Amino acid sequence: MTHRHETRFRVRYAETDQMGIVYYANYLVWMEIGRVEFCRSIGVQYSAMEREDGILLTVAEANCRYQAPALYDEEVVVVTWLDAAHPRMVTFAYEMRAADGRKLATGYTKHVFCGRDLRPARLPEKYWPQFGISRQV
Amino acid sequence: MTHRHETRFRVRYAETDQMGIVYYANYLVWMEIGRVEFCRSIGVQYSAMEREDGILLTVAEANCRYQAPALYDEEVVVVTWLDAAHPRMVTFAYEMRAADGRKLATGYTKHVFCGRDLRPARLPEKYWPQFGISRQV
Amino acid sequence: MTHRHETRFRVRYAETDQMGIVYYANYLVWMEIGRVEFCRSIGVQYSAMEREDGILLTVAEANCRYQAPALYDEEVVVVTWLDAAHPRMVTFAYEMRAADGRKLATGYTKHVFCGRDLRPARLPEKYWPQFGISRQV
Amino acid sequence: MTHRHETRFRVRYAETDQMGIVYYANYLVWMEIGRVEFCRSIGVQYSAMEREDGILLTVAEANCRYQAPALYDEEVVVVTWLDAAHPRMVTFAYEMRAADGRKLATGYTKHVFCGRDLRPARLPEKYWPQFGISRQV
Repeated sequence: MTHRHETRFRVRYAETDQMGIVYYANYLVWMEIGRVEFCRSIGVQYSAMEREDGILLTVAEANCRYQAPALYDEEVVVVTWLDAAHPRMVTFAYEMRAADGRKLATGYTKHVFCGRDLRPARLPEKYWPQFGISRQV
Repeated sequence: MTHRHETRFRVRYAETDQMGIVYYANYLVWMEIGRVEFCRSIGVQYSAMEREDGILLTVAEANCRYQAPALYDEEVVVVTWLDAAHPRMVTFAYEMRAADGRKLATGYTKHVFCGRDLRPARLPEKYWPQFGISRQV
Repeated sequence: MTHRHETRFRVRYAETDQMGIVYYANYLVWMEIGRVEFCRSIGVQYSAMEREDGILLTVAEANCRYQAPALYDEEVVVVTWLDAAHPRMVTFAYEMRAADGRKLATGYTKHVFCGRDLRPARLPEKYWPQFGISRQV
Repeated sequence: MTHRHETRFRVRYAETDQMGIVYYANYLVWMEIGRVEFCRSIGVQYSAMEREDGILLTVAEANCRYQAPALYDEEVVVVTWLDAAHPRMVTFAYEMRAADGRKLATGYTKHVFCGRDLRPARLPEKYWPQFGISRQV
């Protein structure tokens, strides 16, 4: 549960607003990038899980605390880790900072595993080890 | 083919960029709003066509000429009309202006009717009258 | 503080994702629409406050709990109200539901008033009555 | 004028729509990424040009022809090159393909150099060599 994955990308012009900084909803897009790359780093390709196993990661809650504005064209680092994982739910935590070290934001997203019909489903057991879920749970 | 439909909405903060004006890709979102409302005005509910008939309107080409910048919170009018319609393709044309009369942009989008598999399909005949397509075509 | 404002709009195609529902970050865009229209309803035009008074409403925290998926083309109602207001900060709360009554989501956003330099600033006193801020505070 | 720059990135979930493919307006965001990285490759940092010289690259026209749908999580390559450059205008051309070689789209954007007031301006001479503009023009 202590594995932390770092993803880097540059702020797009499209992500700024007329305040001259990144529009606040885009941090949730960045969290999505962070958790997809986190999943890849633990051996889970989210796109294949969705396409082949019909398991979707729906969002139950999202939270973001903004500390410093992110600026156009700067490199952003999203650090992502698992905060909690169960066969039916998973919580990711995020820390976003600029390449120059400024702490931009922290946040978390709570997810419910669902089938293609968007009804709650159990994560297939083959994925449990990667998410650190033990059989006894 | 001369029916022109007007749709109105306000510019969202999310749609601006650090230039202090609306980011250019958002005009294509506005065209989408315009053509969906145009379709509704001719008796075609696009969401039902997609869900019930499995007919999707994929985009083959999009073009936009920007004349004056659109500003946050101002009301925008999108005028939409059919430029061409065939059982396999349709072209919409758009004129966007601000409520104060400034001409913001003009554009067009060319579409191919497709099935759920995203392969080209014919528009079901029941929709031909609304799109002004005659049987002889 | 008990004034609640309702804003209505249709879900855009651009707002959906391949899960067939509205992408989660877009709820924060909807909150923005809700609070701007709430402000208009209490006599505050946010765009003018930003342009003329140089007062920006930066976001310090955003939270959203998702209850049911929002679908393409359906009408969404965002109910917005003031949860707390001080000369330096304001918190808005939101409830989003579909026109058919389904509760879609609830959320809140905490804001800090800033100047054009994005440094914290006091809300000019002329705006206090609308936000329900009393002189004694 | 024959320098072609390649930029690579992965399709974000946020960029898909309920058709299961990338929403068409996002290709214009990708073109923006392509031209910013193209500029960096010829020694022009667009963000600095905007911030330090007050020169903005406003968009006069954008065009995109869609050939094959882009899919979630796949790697996209945007090839960008200069199609025309003058002290007052510049045209970029783009070719977008998937990492597996599928040609996704082609397009172009025409730009007018403007000052901070969004009025047309001349590109400062120091940038001419990078854009291949000769003194005689």
